Amino acid sequence: MTNFLDLAGLGREEIADLLALAAHLERSPEPKALSGKILALLFFNPSLRTLASFQAGMARLGGSSFVISPGQGTWILETRDGVVMDGAAAEHVREAIPVLASYADALGIRSFAGGTDLAADLSDSTFLTMADVCPVPLINLESAINHPCQALGDWKTMDDLKIPAQGGRFVLSWAWHPKPLPLAVPAAAVHMAALRGMDVTVLRPEGFELPEPVMARARQAAEVSGGSVRETADRREALEGAHVIYAKSWTAPVHYGNPEAEAAFRAGLRDWCVSDDWFATTAPDCRFMHCLPVRRNVVVKDSVLDGPRSVVVHEAGNRMWVQMAVLYRLLRG
Amino acid sequence: MTNFLDLAGLGREEIADLLALAAHLERSPEPKALSGKILALLFFNPSLRTLASFQAGMARLGGSSFVISPGQGTWILETRDGVVMDGAAAEHVREAIPVLASYADALGIRSFAGGTDLAADLSDSTFLTMADVCPVPLINLESAINHPCQALGDWKTMDDLKIPAQGGRFVLSWAWHPKPLPLAVPAAAVHMAALRGMDVTVLRPEGFELPEPVMARARQAAEVSGGSVRETADRREALEGAHVIYAKSWTAPVHYGNPEAEAAFRAGLRDWCVSDDWFATTAPDCRFMHCLPVRRNVVVKDSVLDGPRSVVVHEAGNRMWVQMAVLYRLLRG
Amino acid sequence: MTNFLDLAGLGREEIADLLALAAHLERSPEPKALSGKILALLFFNPSLRTLASFQAGMARLGGSSFVISPGQGTWILETRDGVVMDGAAAEHVREAIPVLASYADALGIRSFAGGTDLAADLSDSTFLTMADVCPVPLINLESAINHPCQALGDWKTMDDLKIPAQGGRFVLSWAWHPKPLPLAVPAAAVHMAALRGMDVTVLRPEGFELPEPVMARARQAAEVSGGSVRETADRREALEGAHVIYAKSWTAPVHYGNPEAEAAFRAGLRDWCVSDDWFATTAPDCRFMHCLPVRRNVVVKDSVLDGPRSVVVHEAGNRMWVQMAVLYRLLRG
Repeated sequence: MTNFLDLAGLGREEIADLLALAAHLERSPEPKALSGKILALLFFNPSLRTLASFQAGMARLGGSSFVISPGQGTWILETRDGVVMDGAAAEHVREAIPVLASYADALGIRSFAGGTDLAADLSDSTFLTMADVCPVPLINLESAINHPCQALGDWKTMDDLKIPAQGGRFVLSWAWHPKPLPLAVPAAAVHMAALRGMDVTVLRPEGFELPEPVMARARQAAEVSGGSVRETADRREALEGAHVIYAKSWTAPVHYGNPEAEAAFRAGLRDWCVSDDWFATTAPDCRFMHCLPVRRNVVVKDSVLDGPRSVVVHEAGNRMWVQMAVLYRLLRG
Repeated sequence: MTNFLDLAGLGREEIADLLALAAHLERSPEPKALSGKILALLFFNPSLRTLASFQAGMARLGGSSFVISPGQGTWILETRDGVVMDGAAAEHVREAIPVLASYADALGIRSFAGGTDLAADLSDSTFLTMADVCPVPLINLESAINHPCQALGDWKTMDDLKIPAQGGRFVLSWAWHPKPLPLAVPAAAVHMAALRGMDVTVLRPEGFELPEPVMARARQAAEVSGGSVRETADRREALEGAHVIYAKSWTAPVHYGNPEAEAAFRAGLRDWCVSDDWFATTAPDCRFMHCLPVRRNVVVKDSVLDGPRSVVVHEAGNRMWVQMAVLYRLLRG
Repeated sequence: MTNFLDLAGLGREEIADLLALAAHLERSPEPKALSGKILALLFFNPSLRTLASFQAGMARLGGSSFVISPGQGTWILETRDGVVMDGAAAEHVREAIPVLASYADALGIRSFAGGTDLAADLSDSTFLTMADVCPVPLINLESAINHPCQALGDWKTMDDLKIPAQGGRFVLSWAWHPKPLPLAVPAAAVHMAALRGMDVTVLRPEGFELPEPVMARARQAAEVSGGSVRETADRREALEGAHVIYAKSWTAPVHYGNPEAEAAFRAGLRDWCVSDDWFATTAPDCRFMHCLPVRRNVVVKDSVLDGPRSVVVHEAGNRMWVQMAVLYRLLRG
């Protein structure tokens, strides 16, 4: 493994190996494994879990890390090619990335969706531009359309909880949110669950269909693994027998890049907030998952989040263990 | 010791042990003591000394630390219970604290007073909400009404300088400041000096009386230790024979949460700035103490701060040694 | 060596020793050399390379570092003496510097030019005020008029590339930029190249003459080393036979502290952007250097920066190796 950009770029054996290594590192510390190694973390967008879990994970393996946040103690970085840089950005990623890479053994980059051009975001063009000029192992800390660290942590969480892979019913449900959010987590989650062999249902209001390239990737994963992928606006049908309700808000693709129209379109959907009655017809031990941060009583009710179905802290905790496995494989092989 | 939230929660023997350990660590480095341990630092408010001394102290013991500052590279965190989170805060501390704790062996939190509701701030309700959901050893990095790291560092400083405990005269003096400041440091300082067995005088203009619960806590400590606590607006009376003038500004409790009225009330008090003539009737070697940051020629004159009475840098330096002792006891026992 | 403030403060043998040590550390890691040592980094201005390369370099030598950025998670610091601090600044460097130093084994400070008073900036008064109160080894991370870490990294880069010292032709060329930039890098670059023994040409439009104290320092270095220093506005004459074009924008000294007049004065000079045709009469293997960050198609064309003449990433990479040598000598002798 020379990069960690997308679960789809790994074989199922590689994923199984990472999950096994993560479980091993959780049980058996290896405090010298990455002694002398340095991880550079470049955040174009805010972070709590990702920053903390990578810094802590690197330290637990004996390595070090540093953080650069353009616009916060560092100038703004340009990502577009060929522009005359006489505006806000003082430096181009074509310099910044190789320079940061020259100080480190691996680099992680977070760069959210631009949110204006759906095709550009679906192609992950900004992130891939940066990947192109990175001479050291690169880790995707969430890009416009992917979040493989989250996906791998979620996979481990379902394994830890013995949620069935083959035959397991995974419902990704849209939820209301005051802002139009990126597609990265829903895209990563459906793909991951499908690749795990689960029967995946995308539950969302009309107009919130995930873009076809996202669904096609998930279907392709399901074909390989023996899972399935469908989508519906019918909550009752979707939730029946579910083993997991994975809640996440995302912007309405039909109004991508048009925030006023999107807000109006979303306005009447505040009842898309996961509550206890959503679990009436699920499997008895159905779990509630979310990548965090989550807005209480907006995306999900307090009673669900504070109840025994919620595994959101467990999910977040697993971010560290799977990322330690990724760092281990990238930096030690 | 399983937490470090309040000096009042420790026995006098525990405090003596921490001070002895701090002095030991200052003389005899133990660069492997916390090898492999990780400290999470969560700052809801600015910091210079606390951040630097905890990061340096953890490193000097062989451990690592990471810093999260909500609103600076991380979203704003909600602390109130039961709210519909459709405003600025994207995540609740009920998730954020356990998640950060899952990456670390101990957690430090700084969360200043809200400054609007005196009863809420006196009860330290926001900090205690976070303490309730923290599953690892927790350190108070300054809360609405407490600052035990500062108090312990100040105690060590007085021990270092052989300032008498029994019979030592400790004057906490209010000082003018352009902003209404929290009560945390004055509350912690009077309690600490009383617990050390000193004769404590709170010197402040009329209307700046420390709230009764703060004074009651200090009196209770004095009863145990053989010290005493009084307050006065008479500078001459207060300063006579003093061994320490500890300056600090704080908001007028009578106008708590009403900044305009408070500013008007405070307006005529710019002569509450410690100058050389304050030391005319003190003990000859009376020291000037302040927790820092301090505004020169506002809270205290240059001549005092640059003269031999000032021990403010010594106090700040002691923050690191006492905090190393706290970390050592929390993480190694 | 007890500080690293200015290349002019070192003997040529000390510089040769640092360059040799940097090359050694690049080839042969010494991951325990600074074990237990702590570096404090205080940034009054943004940084990417300096922050990252010092944190990474310290970690590669087994040490630790922490970062304080006044105004970002820390209050604003006052640097002027004798002022009544009732404005934005909550703390004076007379306290902050000794306090940070008490937590660390060495301190680095970045403090850019004020940009209003040329004489004050040329005398580096703010930085030297801070140096005066620093009780531990101090490193200049870029001050009003100096950037010795950059200069030393550039020197190593020219050595690595076997660019001639005696007889080597070094052209520092002014370039257009949307903002008036400080004089620190051009001042450090001409001095360094002169001290290396090169024939230095400062190429700049009329009105952008480097201030006489800057030129005098460079001439003095040239006298010692056998180099030479001249300046011209004639691009054709300047570039003939050049081994290095080192581009950098700087404010017009004639309009120092008057941004509107300076912007008007600079307005017509957008053709001062290094392009391929600048290399028509240079030495065949003439290199393009820049300290970064660089604005593409403003200071230099994409074709130059993406072509084989550009060594800007190599320069930036060398920052880490030379700084590791500086840290090594300061902290281990």
